[in-house]
Amino acid sequence: MGDESRSATDQKTAIAPMLSVRSGARAIEFYKAAFGASESFRIENESGEVVARLSVGEAEFWLADESPEHLNFSPESLGGGSVRMVMTVNDPDAAFEQAVKAGATVVWPVENQPYGWRVGRVVDPFGHHWEIGKPLGRVSV
Amino acid sequence: MGDESRSATDQKTAIAPMLSVRSGARAIEFYKAAFGASESFRIENESGEVVARLSVGEAEFWLADESPEHLNFSPESLGGGSVRMVMTVNDPDAAFEQAVKAGATVVWPVENQPYGWRVGRVVDPFGHHWEIGKPLGRVSV
Repeated sequence: MGDESRSATDQKTAIAPMLSVRSGARAIEFYKAAFGASESFRIENESGEVVARLSVGEAEFWLADESPEHLNFSPESLGGGSVRMVMTVNDPDAAFEQAVKAGATVVWPVENQPYGWRVGRVVDPFGHHWEIGKPLGRVSV
Repeated sequence: MGDESRSATDQKTAIAPMLSVRSGARAIEFYKAAFGASESFRIENESGEVVARLSVGEAEFWLADESPEHLNFSPESLGGGSVRMVMTVNDPDAAFEQAVKAGATVVWPVENQPYGWRVGRVVDPFGHHWEIGKPLGRVSV
């Protein structure tokens, strides 16, 4: 909708991560529960493999079923992740708790860090890591 | 600056990828040349390992030297990537060409895709994949 009404010459630069996962359809449901994500786009092939764009507030990310033939590997296939997601939110403690309740695993809890962020880290059931936090600004360190 | 002047309660939700790389300092120079990135934050330890935040227009991403002991692996260590970056720009052809000139390798060239984007894919010298494109909107498919 936004794309269709936009002229060809006013595209703002954006960078959105595209997470490779096993069980993409299940992953969409997880991210809805864990982050309150909403689904703004989904295509699905006859095998049930998906490509989807999800929004969390004004932030966007993509996920897709892995396709090693196209060099898209899940963390499960690789035995780890090459990119982690830094999710900045207004209430890191609440967001972190919601993610863990939905099935994410705590890597380290939300704490004030010496570099001026209040932040914790989880790994989701699909092997992707998320640092959930916010800059402390003037408030406290 | 922005962070310090912001109150504790008006943090917008944002998701920024943090790329694990070997040779973080070299990677910063590559992304400046390839994407016209500017460096908004860098910390460096006594071994020369960095954590940096880079901006491309209004888009932001992070990079850091890999630290397998903290579960942060480069694509080189894993033999692939678990997340690729979707970079939306106003002129995909020009942005793609600049990245390739700076040392990225073409995975597939910029072309109009049936899903309504003009997009190509490169892999950078550190093993991260970037899809550089834009939605075609009404213009042409």
